[in-house]
Amino acid sequence: MGVPTFLRGLIILFAAVLCAPAAYAEDGYDLWLRYRPVEAQAQARYQPLATALVAGTPSPTLDAAQAELTRGLAGLLGATPPVASAVREGAVVFGTPKSSAVVAGLKLPLEKAGPEGYLIRSVRIDGARATVIAANSDIGVLYGAFAYLRLIQTRQPIDALDIASAPKVALRMLNHWDNLDRTVERGYSGQSIWDWHKLPDWKDPRYTDYARANASLGINATTLNNVNANALSLTPMYLEKAAALADVFRPYGIKVYLTARFSAPIEIGGLKTADPLDPQVRAWWKAKADEIYRYIPDFGGFTVKANSEGQPGPQDYKRTHADGANMMAEVLAPHGGEVIWRAFVYSHEQPDDRAKQAYDEFVPLDGKFASNVIVQVKNGAIDFQPREPFHPLFGATPKTPLAMEFQITKEYLGFATHLAYLGTMYEETLTADTWRRGKGSTVAKVIDGSLFGQKRTGMVGVANIGTDRNWSGSDFDQANWYVFGRMAWDPYLSARDIADEWARQTFSNDAAFLKPTVDMMMGSREAVVDYMTPLGLHHLMARSHHYGPGPWVAGGERADWTSVYYHRADKGGIGFDRTPTGSGATRQYAPQVAAVFEDLKRIDEKDLLWFHHLPWDYRARSGRTLWDELVVRYTGGVADVTAMRNTWAGLTPYVDSERHAQVGAFLAIQEKEAQWWRDASIAYFQTFSERPLPAGYAPPPKPLSYYEALSFPEAPGI
Amino acid sequence: MGVPTFLRGLIILFAAVLCAPAAYAEDGYDLWLRYRPVEAQAQARYQPLATALVAGTPSPTLDAAQAELTRGLAGLLGATPPVASAVREGAVVFGTPKSSAVVAGLKLPLEKAGPEGYLIRSVRIDGARATVIAANSDIGVLYGAFAYLRLIQTRQPIDALDIASAPKVALRMLNHWDNLDRTVERGYSGQSIWDWHKLPDWKDPRYTDYARANASLGINATTLNNVNANALSLTPMYLEKAAALADVFRPYGIKVYLTARFSAPIEIGGLKTADPLDPQVRAWWKAKADEIYRYIPDFGGFTVKANSEGQPGPQDYKRTHADGANMMAEVLAPHGGEVIWRAFVYSHEQPDDRAKQAYDEFVPLDGKFASNVIVQVKNGAIDFQPREPFHPLFGATPKTPLAMEFQITKEYLGFATHLAYLGTMYEETLTADTWRRGKGSTVAKVIDGSLFGQKRTGMVGVANIGTDRNWSGSDFDQANWYVFGRMAWDPYLSARDIADEWARQTFSNDAAFLKPTVDMMMGSREAVVDYMTPLGLHHLMARSHHYGPGPWVAGGERADWTSVYYHRADKGGIGFDRTPTGSGATRQYAPQVAAVFEDLKRIDEKDLLWFHHLPWDYRARSGRTLWDELVVRYTGGVADVTAMRNTWAGLTPYVDSERHAQVGAFLAIQEKEAQWWRDASIAYFQTFSERPLPAGYAPPPKPLSYYEALSFPEAPGI
Repeated sequence: MGVPTFLRGLIILFAAVLCAPAAYAEDGYDLWLRYRPVEAQAQARYQPLATALVAGTPSPTLDAAQAELTRGLAGLLGATPPVASAVREGAVVFGTPKSSAVVAGLKLPLEKAGPEGYLIRSVRIDGARATVIAANSDIGVLYGAFAYLRLIQTRQPIDALDIASAPKVALRMLNHWDNLDRTVERGYSGQSIWDWHKLPDWKDPRYTDYARANASLGINATTLNNVNANALSLTPMYLEKAAALADVFRPYGIKVYLTARFSAPIEIGGLKTADPLDPQVRAWWKAKADEIYRYIPDFGGFTVKANSEGQPGPQDYKRTHADGANMMAEVLAPHGGEVIWRAFVYSHEQPDDRAKQAYDEFVPLDGKFASNVIVQVKNGAIDFQPREPFHPLFGATPKTPLAMEFQITKEYLGFATHLAYLGTMYEETLTADTWRRGKGSTVAKVIDGSLFGQKRTGMVGVANIGTDRNWSGSDFDQANWYVFGRMAWDPYLSARDIADEWARQTFSNDAAFLKPTVDMMMGSREAVVDYMTPLGLHHLMARSHHYGPGPWVAGGERADWTSVYYHRADKGGIGFDRTPTGSGATRQYAPQVAAVFEDLKRIDEKDLLWFHHLPWDYRARSGRTLWDELVVRYTGGVADVTAMRNTWAGLTPYVDSERHAQVGAFLAIQEKEAQWWRDASIAYFQTFSERPLPAGYAPPPKPLSYYEALSFPEAPGI
Repeated sequence: MGVPTFLRGLIILFAAVLCAPAAYAEDGYDLWLRYRPVEAQAQARYQPLATALVAGTPSPTLDAAQAELTRGLAGLLGATPPVASAVREGAVVFGTPKSSAVVAGLKLPLEKAGPEGYLIRSVRIDGARATVIAANSDIGVLYGAFAYLRLIQTRQPIDALDIASAPKVALRMLNHWDNLDRTVERGYSGQSIWDWHKLPDWKDPRYTDYARANASLGINATTLNNVNANALSLTPMYLEKAAALADVFRPYGIKVYLTARFSAPIEIGGLKTADPLDPQVRAWWKAKADEIYRYIPDFGGFTVKANSEGQPGPQDYKRTHADGANMMAEVLAPHGGEVIWRAFVYSHEQPDDRAKQAYDEFVPLDGKFASNVIVQVKNGAIDFQPREPFHPLFGATPKTPLAMEFQITKEYLGFATHLAYLGTMYEETLTADTWRRGKGSTVAKVIDGSLFGQKRTGMVGVANIGTDRNWSGSDFDQANWYVFGRMAWDPYLSARDIADEWARQTFSNDAAFLKPTVDMMMGSREAVVDYMTPLGLHHLMARSHHYGPGPWVAGGERADWTSVYYHRADKGGIGFDRTPTGSGATRQYAPQVAAVFEDLKRIDEKDLLWFHHLPWDYRARSGRTLWDELVVRYTGGVADVTAMRNTWAGLTPYVDSERHAQVGAFLAIQEKEAQWWRDASIAYFQTFSERPLPAGYAPPPKPLSYYEALSFPEAPGI
């Protein structure tokens, strides 16, 4: 640069002094795309390899890639990389063979990248070292640009790169349970980021940052509105608003989907019926689809919750889910759209076991769905509990593609204040073996289509995104958005690797920070399981808002919305017998799986009370009685949180004070609430077990009546 | 500094390049406390006069003052001022005679400062030039610190200061119409900033910034929750949360008040009645007050909306407002608390003129209220319309102190997207002459207590604050918070001066920016009046959410919630006859005022149709018929907004791109909606006037039926 070394030091010093307070304000808004300056040594390593950007013919998506590379390298390496027209030493070339003559000239094996993937390679071009980010499509280039920046953010070497990556799942989607009034069902991070009232005229810059964050993970689809749908979303006024969002998202490869309320033909169409076989209804949906595509030419399709929890659906007219889905599929097909039909259904009548209903409903329909329908199945058969065995539908529909539905927002895992990294939960489900085509028939292979050779594949996450400055309600909840996106790209990635990758980008690459932090994240969800619902217990939270313990919840509208329905505690014991002596739900799994679940000697104790009703003096593998084991687990969950608090308290040197303080405050809340869960649950179950606590375990400090009387009518998220 | 000039330039250049994007990100969060570096010339002028801070004995409030001076001077002058133990050349000394020996030694005429005010003086101490910020109380010092920083932010000289300032109004309060579920009634800037669910454990740093912003204006009280009250706010769980907020606010001189739901003794007390004369009810309130003061020792008191719009109140038990207010006053009095009793009441029965009811209700009660009751009166007799004549209660209760209630949030002035500076509206009310003690008996003199020698005085603003990053929904809406606070401190300040002061701090001191911007602000509210409700029309907006025009609104629950009740248009003419030939509301004013309002020759045409029903061919002072004049005004309002857009478009050199873009986008929305208001209103009123538009005035582009059919069920704020 021609600036003497001593001056450069001086300049950096002055710059740091001048801009430190504002420049490094850490409020979480930047997510994992922080691009803070690398350490001096890393700077010396990276800088010569990122001296300039070489672009080709621009496009909106390639412009986004260039902007991100510019922003990222400027932040990480301290200087904005110039855009060069020719390759020079250290250049970063990006593009497709079509957009870039340099890329075309390299004759790269781009078949590895597929339609959406990328290659990143260290190459020599006319003697100059260069890095090329290449793809078959512009969006592949953008994904590659983010992957390249991630290498530097996580301090990987970039001098001998030979990376090929392509998504293993076609549809990588967020579901926003966002209402038109900006409330978010099960949202704990502020309002909906969609400011419907000001759309389409005001396009909040946050929409672009949302698209950037998703594209950085490969998320390529978003359902904007709540599955408990409002037909107004399909009226012209709201289609115009959705189209404005689609315009913002398009360069980032994100397609817009909308939920379709099944009764919309009645509510906004003026018809008397929504019967999917009624010609007028079919005509209405066809006209509606055509209208939507006039607003959004690349509209993705409909996400539909029908005949579930009071939502209207085809069964209202004695039609099947296939009848309903296929009607919509037919009107979307000419436009290339698809239907995502949720399998989270259970009848209005009281079932013998709610866990069995989706399977019973959908397996008989296997083969009956149109080719552009995908059925969206929650990871477990009940409802996003801290732990559930994998859903028996996975692997049970060889002719019907299934999309995984994970919940990113922590409806049942402590809202935004509990630190619970969900990567381990997602991993547990994805690596579970359905045995449907023999050993190794994992859920991941169902989801990526490889088990049955299905091309239409999908993974869906119920978003935890809101208007909170840090997007997700807490800094660590950003990791759940992140791990969802990364696993949707590749369901075989490990939860630990992703936690490490996320923590490096979000906080620090310092090993002294990473090890305890990643360990803490990896154990965090198990802690929640233990202090809320150990040993396979489930659905024990307070009614409606689900905040805090409510194992005593009984009565009301329907039995399967109570806790007593699920834990079935009595003087004799506790747990839901789902073996053939009970509901027989185990038989919805492959025989090899059922045999394990049914066998008390072989079942993993994490699922024990999910499948078995056992006496209080049943011997756990620890040698303790079931009652004692429950108390030990509950108590251990609280101790785990205390340990997390201590761990975090020791990490002050590595984390800015602003984020450190909030995480610390939230861990304190978590510890308090973990104790509350433990105490209330033990106080309640003790009325059945009628046993003392094991020696050394403190009894609940208050009587059960105290915990039962607690009331939180204004808890968020409903 | 020893650094050669060419190097300093280089350093500044590099620093600017390095930290420009992040350091100067302007998202509005900093409000008017931006403290951006002053120009080089100003730096040379100010720096020698602010070389160090000299503090005395610390206290939480003096610590806040020191922190603010440090932050402000570091930002403005580029270097953190050292804290010195002794006065040196250029020192800034701050404190009270009690906390600071230096201040005590100066023997300043601190009687001018009163209990909350301050002196700022340029002095010499032992030969050294110094600036002293002195007060009788710590909070006065904090106010003085903000005032001192404002001088630099607005580029005033600080070398020969002799400033004394004391608030003219005792209670300077915000009312948050915030619900416990974080919705905000009539809020257009996101959720409530009170995150009740995470309180008291998580004290969001934003609460401190809220307190800083308010203290910078002298606001010293806040009612946390909605006047449409929820009794839960008074339960221990919520008192603990409110106490946590009070703890944050205390150093900034802000007292917490809560709304008290009149029926709370029934709802949370288990009583069968809330009759204010019932001994059990009185005992319940006494115990509740005692309990509250255990949580919040300096609790301010209750804000009460009773017997208004469905809220419970003493009239439910055939008691008077005085009975209700005095019961609460009695239980608060031992603790030094007060009751703010709202006069915004109107009966369930259909009145002859809603505008008359508050006067009719409260004037007979004058003298009947306890000494710690203040009656809170909206600026006008209807409800925060774009323009209302001053409320007839002002000046009509010599024995009852009245607090002014202004609405800062723009329920009726276009929500957050319309630029409407309310300083002119507040000024118009405050300078209005009640004539109750002869000429010059202005509303301001009622409010500051000088007209009747009242000591208990207050000004209350319904806050426009929410979780939006910029707090108020738009950058220019911050000015309305600002001007409210400044006028609460001194109701005689001019709206123009405050606009100038605000614009300097918020955007730029450049004269080329200030003149057009302040002009634009000063004309902005009149533009809204013209495109919504010209010539004294009022209450013509859509039902319930109040978004957009609804002059056709009729029927429903009660006549005085419709538009036709207020405009009374028919073939014969338009307007509400409030002279003695009509409702006679004019007679609620002093005779000199009534005489003007009743006389078509003397009345200001801005109030014409508020007081008179006039034929369509009535001759306005312009010489035009009333119909033509209406069309001209409506159209002119739209043209004013177009001019505002053009003005703003020309100010790009002076405003960061982020804020410039949002203001520009909002002005585009405002222009569109102004046109909609104009077109819909003209289309509607033309059905009565049956007259053509004046030559050159475009007819509405759509038929009336189009405007009437528009529906916005999800409009915000309800």
